[in-house]
Amino acid sequence: MSNPMKPSGLDAEALYANLLQQVQAGLNGARNEESKQENKLCIVGIHSGGAWLAERLAQDLGMSERCGVLDVSFYRDDYAKKGLPAEVKPTHITFDVAGATVLLVDDVLYTGRTTRAAINELFDYGRPARIMLAALVDRGGRQLPVAADFVAATVQVEPCEALRLQRNDAGQFTLTIEENHA
Amino acid sequence: MSNPMKPSGLDAEALYANLLQQVQAGLNGARNEESKQENKLCIVGIHSGGAWLAERLAQDLGMSERCGVLDVSFYRDDYAKKGLPAEVKPTHITFDVAGATVLLVDDVLYTGRTTRAAINELFDYGRPARIMLAALVDRGGRQLPVAADFVAATVQVEPCEALRLQRNDAGQFTLTIEENHA
Repeated sequence: MSNPMKPSGLDAEALYANLLQQVQAGLNGARNEESKQENKLCIVGIHSGGAWLAERLAQDLGMSERCGVLDVSFYRDDYAKKGLPAEVKPTHITFDVAGATVLLVDDVLYTGRTTRAAINELFDYGRPARIMLAALVDRGGRQLPVAADFVAATVQVEPCEALRLQRNDAGQFTLTIEENHA
Repeated sequence: MSNPMKPSGLDAEALYANLLQQVQAGLNGARNEESKQENKLCIVGIHSGGAWLAERLAQDLGMSERCGVLDVSFYRDDYAKKGLPAEVKPTHITFDVAGATVLLVDDVLYTGRTTRAAINELFDYGRPARIMLAALVDRGGRQLPVAADFVAATVQVEPCEALRLQRNDAGQFTLTIEENHA
């Protein structure tokens, strides 16, 4: 968490390139392990920003047939308080995660509650051999002992602000800061 | 994980003193937060080594009335495979964890599966404002994206070996290496 960047300096495309590089190097290690343990690699993104990132990572890594999406709305521990957001996308995982090495992808790592929810949902599909976490940015403020295996940048954001990943029609990413009305 | 120590060089009492110092400094920060958020601090140890550590930390920090024990045997994701160990101690938490800052204590941080089980069990008691993790040693080999907030040492241990914390009648700790028959 040394030298956190101000979000105004964040170039989402450059961050993505950085994350891809880290994931490529890290998964090569995991693939070597895999050949020993016969684990299969797959990529699962958390709706919505993480799913976009996962999709593009899967494409760039040649793994599109083993890429899925999680919507953790029902698994969040504040579900009872917050209820469901207007738009809930169904979870879409068409492969077996039991015994697999799962690269879980999120856009922003913050309290860790979303990560916990995603891990619990994954375990309802099967028991992965390993779950690694990739996040485009880590904004600190952890409330659970969660850490990313791959993260492109740590950033400083006010508690009242939300970082939001957006994707344009050409598939390019931008990161914007919004007032948090939650 | 730089410069991992060989377990032969591990002095469990020195490690405990180091951990206590880190926790003291860290909880002072959390206590300052607490006065803002009205969260209460408590300490919960994972049976058995973590529970001994938690008990002693609570004593040294003057928090013995808010110290509990978790047995995660029923919450482990390999419960179906491993079944129950011969000795299962009941979980004992006599205070409200909802809204609390919980210092979760384990002796050895390894795959992260025990941590996940402990977090899930804690959430069945109530929704903590924050869970921080303290471990005497981190032996690497993570299978879930879990990280300790406080750890006294990172150590190198063969996969076939288990690190075991022991406590003598005088309450002194030792760390021993055993062949893992699991």
